[in-house]
Amino acid sequence: MRAVDLIQKKRDGKSLNTEEMAWLIEQYAAGLVPDYQMSAFAMAVYFKGMSVAETMAMTLSMLKTGKEYDLSSISGIKVDKHSTGGVGDKVTLILVPLVASFGVPVAKMSGRGLGHTGGTLDKLEAIRGYQINLTEQDFLRQVREIGLSVIGQSDDLVKADKLLYALRDVTATVDIMPLIASSIMSKKIAAGADKILLDVTVGDGAFMKNEDEAQELAKIMVALGREMGRETIAVLTDMSQPLGLAIGNRLEVLEALSVMKGEGRDDLTDFICQLAQLMLDLVGKKVSLAEIREHLVGGQALEKFEAMVLAQGGDLEDLYRPVRVETIEEIRAEKEGYITQLPALYFGQLAMKLGAGREVKTDGLDYEAGIVFEKKVGDWVRKGQVVAKLYTNKKIDEKWLTECQKNVKIGDEKIEPKEIIKVIS
Amino acid sequence: MRAVDLIQKKRDGKSLNTEEMAWLIEQYAAGLVPDYQMSAFAMAVYFKGMSVAETMAMTLSMLKTGKEYDLSSISGIKVDKHSTGGVGDKVTLILVPLVASFGVPVAKMSGRGLGHTGGTLDKLEAIRGYQINLTEQDFLRQVREIGLSVIGQSDDLVKADKLLYALRDVTATVDIMPLIASSIMSKKIAAGADKILLDVTVGDGAFMKNEDEAQELAKIMVALGREMGRETIAVLTDMSQPLGLAIGNRLEVLEALSVMKGEGRDDLTDFICQLAQLMLDLVGKKVSLAEIREHLVGGQALEKFEAMVLAQGGDLEDLYRPVRVETIEEIRAEKEGYITQLPALYFGQLAMKLGAGREVKTDGLDYEAGIVFEKKVGDWVRKGQVVAKLYTNKKIDEKWLTECQKNVKIGDEKIEPKEIIKVIS
Repeated sequence: MRAVDLIQKKRDGKSLNTEEMAWLIEQYAAGLVPDYQMSAFAMAVYFKGMSVAETMAMTLSMLKTGKEYDLSSISGIKVDKHSTGGVGDKVTLILVPLVASFGVPVAKMSGRGLGHTGGTLDKLEAIRGYQINLTEQDFLRQVREIGLSVIGQSDDLVKADKLLYALRDVTATVDIMPLIASSIMSKKIAAGADKILLDVTVGDGAFMKNEDEAQELAKIMVALGREMGRETIAVLTDMSQPLGLAIGNRLEVLEALSVMKGEGRDDLTDFICQLAQLMLDLVGKKVSLAEIREHLVGGQALEKFEAMVLAQGGDLEDLYRPVRVETIEEIRAEKEGYITQLPALYFGQLAMKLGAGREVKTDGLDYEAGIVFEKKVGDWVRKGQVVAKLYTNKKIDEKWLTECQKNVKIGDEKIEPKEIIKVIS
Repeated sequence: MRAVDLIQKKRDGKSLNTEEMAWLIEQYAAGLVPDYQMSAFAMAVYFKGMSVAETMAMTLSMLKTGKEYDLSSISGIKVDKHSTGGVGDKVTLILVPLVASFGVPVAKMSGRGLGHTGGTLDKLEAIRGYQINLTEQDFLRQVREIGLSVIGQSDDLVKADKLLYALRDVTATVDIMPLIASSIMSKKIAAGADKILLDVTVGDGAFMKNEDEAQELAKIMVALGREMGRETIAVLTDMSQPLGLAIGNRLEVLEALSVMKGEGRDDLTDFICQLAQLMLDLVGKKVSLAEIREHLVGGQALEKFEAMVLAQGGDLEDLYRPVRVETIEEIRAEKEGYITQLPALYFGQLAMKLGAGREVKTDGLDYEAGIVFEKKVGDWVRKGQVVAKLYTNKKIDEKWLTECQKNVKIGDEKIEPKEIIKVIS
């Protein structure tokens, strides 16, 4: 087999068979198909797509290029969740302990943030002492003992994906549906859970800008999960405005804590309860939303969260302290009315500038920096009322404040945001 | 500027401006844009094309990555010709001395053959002692003194093209019109001639399989040449059957000699006279076809050819000796009728198998091997009459003979082949 023939086949709109796809991925992971052939292949996929069978073959082949985690030493049905990324997305911090509080074990690997999107790993590292690198034995033991653990994605997981992901990033082949699907699903399958909930974000601040695209991606991933014997459902969720009130690592941890103390905004609390219901349903537990909400606001999720933080070396005292920044700037409403838009992409990028995110992978982070909203889309504001506060240790550019105020869109119409757009199962 | 943004721009169907294209090619030649970005770019060009302005910018930028030859020490208007390749194409061997015999200087660089297509350089090297590597000074001096020289393409010509050509070969991005055009024209411009005749072959044995494609390529190249101040015309020529009677390096040299002695087939003789007329016309010499034919069959072209061979170290005695092969196999007509097809691709590949060509660049050649036709398309044959002879030093596979006979198509209809399909100026 020759890589050039497989590239040409795809370029000419034909499908690679399972054997061909397996060969390509295997040789690529082994360094025998060079990057310059893989990038040409990826670009051909951009234009010609891949069938479900091809995407399946690719996912399976990628899976084989790394370690597959075996969670069988943990009793019960293991469930995992994955979000395609967003702004202010602290869902994992709350959802994992909430689900675990029902006795469902969660052994989860998370990733870092890049650009305007945050990453659970960075949020956890904002907790002093929290260890994201556990040995496999310690990881499994912790889940057996306390029912949950969130760690960093292991380096030995899906080698081909690591290579391909880095390559796609520099060859304008990132936004290709079947490649995104196989990247996510190969890692989720390798991580070993029995059931998977996918949170596919949609909108301005998400990777998928519109519902049709998001739905297509969700359907491919659900099909991949099922075909590989891992029951998978997907939820399309809104990412047109930031999720919840806070953006920024420690600020989001604090918001997560407030939700788990029953002091969160209703919309975020409800949203997480709905996701928890779907995850519990996946493992065969039918629980009412009221009962789930009780676990959340009643402190049972918080208890699990604190147990995890402690088990992984985190400092509980430091956890609750307020953020420390040199500057807090208030952004006020320019006029009276309903907030109609808070563009997630814009605010994600602003938070990054304030120090909360990385422009490139090697940038450092300021865990304390970020944005906290006092109002969200659909809320009424008076002229001059505080809509958001910017937290930073950097020198604020005056231009940011003007721009920021302009990005708080105010109108006469009350919009009712809907966190869950659709469930794909 | 970032390569990934330029790749994305092209992928999204937009045009790169001159500055962007110059940056991309310059950085690529300098090794600062890696192959994996360039191959993704080339694949995007496959799907989205390039405007004439982009192709122009690319050609100019490529040109700057290597040495440009300065032919100004040779008096008169210098003319060059280039063929996009074919089977049995010995045109350069006859046309260059013919044009030179009218006092028009020709300083030409040629390439090697690959696959089913031959290369002038290999044919010249079939002449014992012929030196294809001359220093620049010797090359220019020879053209000043005797009016012609054909040498191998210099290594310092168009570095970006060398890199890109090798990359395209292994990434299924060879057959892309604007990349072919800029590859050819950057080298032709760098070679320094004032006027250029392009022979764009069409058909089974050529790179361009149909007239529309060939015409498009010809038009782009003519436009590029003109824009760069080098008057260029193109001729679309037929490559549905091999050109002339011989395929194979020494066999083609012998056929060229026979044409220059006035003993060639009329069709080939006429074809070359027409090309010569176009080249002479380019430098402002209006010469009748009759007069050109006189130079050709009257020995004036042969005189120039022999002078060139001698000047470049070739052995004139060896030049005229018959080929030496262990086996000559005759292919005979299966039935009576007109020859309707002799597929160029098939016979080019057969000649390669007999030893006359290279499958990959590193293969050796048998200069003596090849095929000589006794009949061409449009000729009448009796059943059992010899149509072609195969010359080889290899063991002939019986299957080749059967296949070969099947590829001599015989029918009732007399087809009149037309060597020159169209002139694009």
